[in-house]
Amino acid sequence: MRVHLGPDHDEHLAAAIVEGGGTLVPLHEAEALVWHGDVDGFPELPAGVRWVQLAFAGIEPFFRAGIIDPDRIWTNASGVYADNVAEYAVGALLVGLRQFHGSIAAAARPVQRWQKPVLDPQVRMLHGSTVAIVGCGGIGRAMIPRLRALGVDVVAVNYSGRPVEGASVTFPASRTAEVWTMADHFVVAAPATADTDRLVNAEALDAMPDTAWLVNVARGNLVDSDALVDALRGGKIAGAVLDVTDPEPLPDDHLLWTFDNVVITPHVANTRTGLNATLAPTVRENVARFIAGEQLIALVDPAAGY
Amino acid sequence: MRVHLGPDHDEHLAAAIVEGGGTLVPLHEAEALVWHGDVDGFPELPAGVRWVQLAFAGIEPFFRAGIIDPDRIWTNASGVYADNVAEYAVGALLVGLRQFHGSIAAAARPVQRWQKPVLDPQVRMLHGSTVAIVGCGGIGRAMIPRLRALGVDVVAVNYSGRPVEGASVTFPASRTAEVWTMADHFVVAAPATADTDRLVNAEALDAMPDTAWLVNVARGNLVDSDALVDALRGGKIAGAVLDVTDPEPLPDDHLLWTFDNVVITPHVANTRTGLNATLAPTVRENVARFIAGEQLIALVDPAAGY
Repeated sequence: MRVHLGPDHDEHLAAAIVEGGGTLVPLHEAEALVWHGDVDGFPELPAGVRWVQLAFAGIEPFFRAGIIDPDRIWTNASGVYADNVAEYAVGALLVGLRQFHGSIAAAARPVQRWQKPVLDPQVRMLHGSTVAIVGCGGIGRAMIPRLRALGVDVVAVNYSGRPVEGASVTFPASRTAEVWTMADHFVVAAPATADTDRLVNAEALDAMPDTAWLVNVARGNLVDSDALVDALRGGKIAGAVLDVTDPEPLPDDHLLWTFDNVVITPHVANTRTGLNATLAPTVRENVARFIAGEQLIALVDPAAGY
Repeated sequence: MRVHLGPDHDEHLAAAIVEGGGTLVPLHEAEALVWHGDVDGFPELPAGVRWVQLAFAGIEPFFRAGIIDPDRIWTNASGVYADNVAEYAVGALLVGLRQFHGSIAAAARPVQRWQKPVLDPQVRMLHGSTVAIVGCGGIGRAMIPRLRALGVDVVAVNYSGRPVEGASVTFPASRTAEVWTMADHFVVAAPATADTDRLVNAEALDAMPDTAWLVNVARGNLVDSDALVDALRGGKIAGAVLDVTDPEPLPDDHLLWTFDNVVITPHVANTRTGLNATLAPTVRENVARFIAGEQLIALVDPAAGY
């Protein structure tokens, strides 16, 4: 099977293609394309390319650019980075609840760095709490055993409402509004679609407990940034940890940088640096499956948009 | 049973004493003392006091002050706060490995707050790593299921070397030196005794992988602060997260504050604020057991010093 690797060479992915049974070829000779770049620079596809493997889990820029057509097989990296992102989300909850950010901010001052009297009463325990995972797909499923071992009860929201293993209860997306009052803290991990744009809006933030921490590991636009600023000003929630922002990158003068109860990380829940090494086993498996005529891992549904 | 509660009233502990079957009395009438204060102000004990319940897990100041005598029964809070501290330690590992501290520091700057190119290559995953818990008692045992769910392999060190459930291997304290080369990261959770003073010294830090994160949730003096400063300067380890320091509180001009890969929190792994509410069930149970003539929870061994 003839596979092109673009936009440039990568040792992990090249080895995976060969180990899966493929041969590396120029694009015009290829039956399949493994593309580990962004949407910018994505090539015109020759007719011979029947399958495209993308390297990201969130591929809405490829949809927006009209690249994903229903005539070919498309696979993405959905689920591949789930452990990385789930681990980040657990860390994000602990950073907020356990006030690591407050200690780190205090330590950066020249004096009164040991802020025991201020921070001690603000620390909250994660164990014994209920966390809602809004958009409980691969990342959410990877979070559940981690959270349960940490003594957390999980409420899941997914598209269908089909029960997620390990969650105490699963709601369909149509009933998301009920969930904001049912949990102590919230992790947003849904795909970015027309339905999930500004899913966390003013009403949602208002409904959450004022002790709630909000974590976003999905896409920035799933949280309404203006509504979040208002909610933080009004003390409607305890704080937020955001690995994705709207806009992204978040401009230096954005108000969200100014809150001492907001932690912003620069989209590192899954890292670009480790991307190809993490993706390689999936590429190897998908090349082997394509050759064997089997169903591929992480098929994209062009109609659903993810 | 007549119990005195000191140094002052507390609603959680008073209710627990009564629920356990006790009656609150002045100290000179008491058979038992529940003391939720520090060593300062600890009273001269009347001969009638046969049992003293202390509120902390680490009670070496009471030993140093010569308060703990072998003629009475003493109990502490060993294990009571294990979930709180274990949760903190897991959070501490994630803060360091996932570079939350770097994001928080960058966010505090006026410009170039979104430090993706700098931070992305520095992020490390916790899953797939090996963590050594040095001093694997109640806190360590509470950490193990949490770490395993996070995809971590655990190496335990305890005094006897008796296997700890869930650890891949358990070493006796006499072989601690071997462990520094066997794990990726290290959590210090041993009691403070003469044997554990400066347990993490220059040799230990030198033996650790230079990618190691060190977490201390025990007592500050278990880590040699000067040796730690040297190791950080020399790049011998990746960083440290310290909830306890030597000296403590850490003075504002201490060198440990100056490293961007050191996170210092002001002894909040277990909080003073939530202490009595967390301790109350143990006090209730111990009062009931004392009345029934049963063995108490968290007996102190005056000979062992913890």
